[in-house]
Amino acid sequence: MAINAPAIVLVRPQMGENIGAAARAMLNFGLTDLRLVAPRDGWPNRAATDNSSGALDVMPPVQVFDTLAEALTDCHFVYATTARMRDMVKPTFEVKSAVDDGTQRTASGQKLAFVFGPERTGLENDDLTLCHALIHVPTNPDFSSLNLGQCVLLIAYEWMSAQSSSYGKPLTLNGSLPATQDKLEEFQRRLEQELDSKGFFREPTLKPTVSRNIRNIFARSELSEQELRTLHGVVTALLRDK
Amino acid sequence: MAINAPAIVLVRPQMGENIGAAARAMLNFGLTDLRLVAPRDGWPNRAATDNSSGALDVMPPVQVFDTLAEALTDCHFVYATTARMRDMVKPTFEVKSAVDDGTQRTASGQKLAFVFGPERTGLENDDLTLCHALIHVPTNPDFSSLNLGQCVLLIAYEWMSAQSSSYGKPLTLNGSLPATQDKLEEFQRRLEQELDSKGFFREPTLKPTVSRNIRNIFARSELSEQELRTLHGVVTALLRDK
Repeated sequence: MAINAPAIVLVRPQMGENIGAAARAMLNFGLTDLRLVAPRDGWPNRAATDNSSGALDVMPPVQVFDTLAEALTDCHFVYATTARMRDMVKPTFEVKSAVDDGTQRTASGQKLAFVFGPERTGLENDDLTLCHALIHVPTNPDFSSLNLGQCVLLIAYEWMSAQSSSYGKPLTLNGSLPATQDKLEEFQRRLEQELDSKGFFREPTLKPTVSRNIRNIFARSELSEQELRTLHGVVTALLRDK
Repeated sequence: MAINAPAIVLVRPQMGENIGAAARAMLNFGLTDLRLVAPRDGWPNRAATDNSSGALDVMPPVQVFDTLAEALTDCHFVYATTARMRDMVKPTFEVKSAVDDGTQRTASGQKLAFVFGPERTGLENDDLTLCHALIHVPTNPDFSSLNLGQCVLLIAYEWMSAQSSSYGKPLTLNGSLPATQDKLEEFQRRLEQELDSKGFFREPTLKPTVSRNIRNIFARSELSEQELRTLHGVVTALLRDK
């Protein structure tokens, strides 16, 4: 994680449990710069520690500020999260696009902050004026009920996702190589011969099609060598006299 | 949300609170098909209701099953979530690529399931053999501590995000549906019985592993119904007396 990874700023959080959940969510995705503005129950907070799954024990010390402005002094660009759309003229991102935007800014040396409001009320307009852009998390219009820890989780998750470029094709074999084509061909040919000797291909005209269909099943499975050996064993066993 | 939106399947969940958190996470992002396999404390569960923020009151009734196989009978493609990488040959996705893959499948009429294991232990290998692909949530290697509700939240969030931005990707089956899980299970069971009667499982202690490896080969192939009929025919032919 870059040295100037973003700060997560919780403004006037009420429940220690939520602060702990936020810390846990952050550390799962490699974020460690947690800042609190006027937490209701002071700091440190036992409920926060208990609910962080140990995250607060290993992260750098949480910084506590009286005002949001003080919490943001070293930040170059600040995103505010909002549950509802605000009547305020500001760039508004969804989570992914905010994180893409932020990744570019971080690469050019900017320090970012993601700001979250109090549990029930969200950020006040005075808080929002200190922020450069809004992040709106689109949810089910009939049931929009994300809590603070969940919001932090989504931002942290997207942040880490954006930092890694590992998105792409699924890996089938957990790092081991599939069997080479000659081993696969050897199995396919053997199976065909055995089927032939058992009268499986009753309609000679259909044989190419049926045979192709069977080959296709195994060809697309990216079989490992061990799996091919197992399949040879299966065929041998089925052929065995009782 | 599409009528055939994915099912979320919780296998042997322990804490009612986590079931409630999962329901809340789902409904926030428009998913409502929640299935439980052998929940430790039975069902309904007061702690689940209390922790769902009302989600369980407005969602369709949760379905409860004795086994994972029963929970999946109507599903065409099944993703298992795992915290650690498994020593099992299966396509492995990250969350975004899994959800992109699933979006394409849903568009072509497939019913999907995302399967989550018990809180402490995760899914067992026997559960995994019923699934076609794995989803690995990449987290901080030094602090990997996502709970069940958080995992469901990430999948549900990505699911909703992907519904507005999917891109083209060829499907394996060219438009026809894969066989449902019950048809696949029927074939797997028959093959095992035939192998058993032929003395294939010489080492009784190894039977579960070998049997799982064989199941896994076919489970990940997304067999069509036609292909399953062909494989039944292959087994019948190999068993035939010359």
